[in-house]
Amino acid sequence: VQASFARLTLMRTIGAHLSRIAPGEVEIALAFRDDLTQHHGYIAAAILTAIVDVACGYAAMTLMPAGMSVLTVEYKVNFLAPARTEQLLAVGRVMRPGRTLTVCNGDVVGIAPDGCQPLATMLGTMMAIPENQTPH
Amino acid sequence: VQASFARLTLMRTIGAHLSRIAPGEVEIALAFRDDLTQHHGYIAAAILTAIVDVACGYAAMTLMPAGMSVLTVEYKVNFLAPARTEQLLAVGRVMRPGRTLTVCNGDVVGIAPDGCQPLATMLGTMMAIPENQTPH
Amino acid sequence: VQASFARLTLMRTIGAHLSRIAPGEVEIALAFRDDLTQHHGYIAAAILTAIVDVACGYAAMTLMPAGMSVLTVEYKVNFLAPARTEQLLAVGRVMRPGRTLTVCNGDVVGIAPDGCQPLATMLGTMMAIPENQTPH
Amino acid sequence: VQASFARLTLMRTIGAHLSRIAPGEVEIALAFRDDLTQHHGYIAAAILTAIVDVACGYAAMTLMPAGMSVLTVEYKVNFLAPARTEQLLAVGRVMRPGRTLTVCNGDVVGIAPDGCQPLATMLGTMMAIPENQTPH
Repeated sequence: VQASFARLTLMRTIGAHLSRIAPGEVEIALAFRDDLTQHHGYIAAAILTAIVDVACGYAAMTLMPAGMSVLTVEYKVNFLAPARTEQLLAVGRVMRPGRTLTVCNGDVVGIAPDGCQPLATMLGTMMAIPENQTPH
Repeated sequence: VQASFARLTLMRTIGAHLSRIAPGEVEIALAFRDDLTQHHGYIAAAILTAIVDVACGYAAMTLMPAGMSVLTVEYKVNFLAPARTEQLLAVGRVMRPGRTLTVCNGDVVGIAPDGCQPLATMLGTMMAIPENQTPH
Repeated sequence: VQASFARLTLMRTIGAHLSRIAPGEVEIALAFRDDLTQHHGYIAAAILTAIVDVACGYAAMTLMPAGMSVLTVEYKVNFLAPARTEQLLAVGRVMRPGRTLTVCNGDVVGIAPDGCQPLATMLGTMMAIPENQTPH
Repeated sequence: VQASFARLTLMRTIGAHLSRIAPGEVEIALAFRDDLTQHHGYIAAAILTAIVDVACGYAAMTLMPAGMSVLTVEYKVNFLAPARTEQLLAVGRVMRPGRTLTVCNGDVVGIAPDGCQPLATMLGTMMAIPENQTPH
């Protein structure tokens, strides 16, 4: 997971990092940055999606055999509140592992001095492919 | 739409621009950039999502009264092929306009010398809110 | 919730019943029936969807003021395993209540002598409308 | 497709029938019935889902080799208007065929003397499995 995450250029571009890896569960942390915002000044929906997608994808990878890579087949995200906290945390979890397809859910929370606030929630499907195989 | 798009900092960060605005249909263009890629070297899923979300949101806004802003309630995206072309185009369309909620679909295509290739497809819900009202 | 459920003709048609109502959480029970199956002899995807949609809708209604009715705006369902147990249970939960829109998630589990098995999982959006108002 | 549809007990239970089969596109017709309604007297969301899911699944099957069966991996449905017309038609289409996964979209329309009205729209993923293999 760490070796693969290091090759995720977009995560470097937005300043996200892996904050926890456990079997079937991965967390990604992101700090608020002005260049990631939408027209109201909040972190854009697609950035919340980016970090929870990566958290879910790597959560799926933790339960796959070595030498497998992971591709996002599809995801669905509901947005729950505007993202304006200094720190955001995305958690991805495996709901049902499979040889080919793994179903994951994930959440993005905003971390504030007075507690955590749910910002977005994802339900998606990840696909295992051999690392040396061209996707799709 | 143009005034609102100009405030979308994330679009500037990734180099996307508005390429067409028509009633109920908006297009966003993006050029391939290495800093937007995932671990296979393709444009990351969340970036495809970002441009088609914005295309859908503004497609919805074209049918709203003046003074309304648009928020993404939720979206679902299926990924169809890896994004490796030099140019990408996202098209957002209104399927059903509504006073509060507007249902949109959208597509991202890769533009190559030998034709267009579908890369991702979205089905989502947009919400109208008065411009001066705090979201959620 | 009980009065509204009694008017859900489809639930009577398929033999589903309300098995638990709590604030923000509702359960619907269904017994296996041959006339609800698909081509492999399992309970059809749409029947799993029917019971978890109703569980989510009523979970949302438990947190709404009296005199409000609930409409499904959209849902997404992932199917996790074939539904072949004698008893099925759908649980719907409110993730984020709202004045207009409520985000819910839900699960369908198969109940077997040796434990519960996840069959399907839903993420959806419910809308509150005044009971005397025509939907949409 | 016809042989498989004949084994879909739920379709017989609700009175739906196959009305058109073409490569990559299948239609299912349904007549309004009181026993399929929800609390407002409209056809229930899950019944719209049932017919468009089947239309999408068989649309996928038309492009698969003989001896393959189809399973729904996941779907997302947006509901656009209440279903109160005498006749409903679901159309399923293949957006991107694949060896394992096929992405489909579909629509349900209500057919009235004065024209068609969009009622629901689906975006989903279908999986090919050998007919003699146990699902999942």
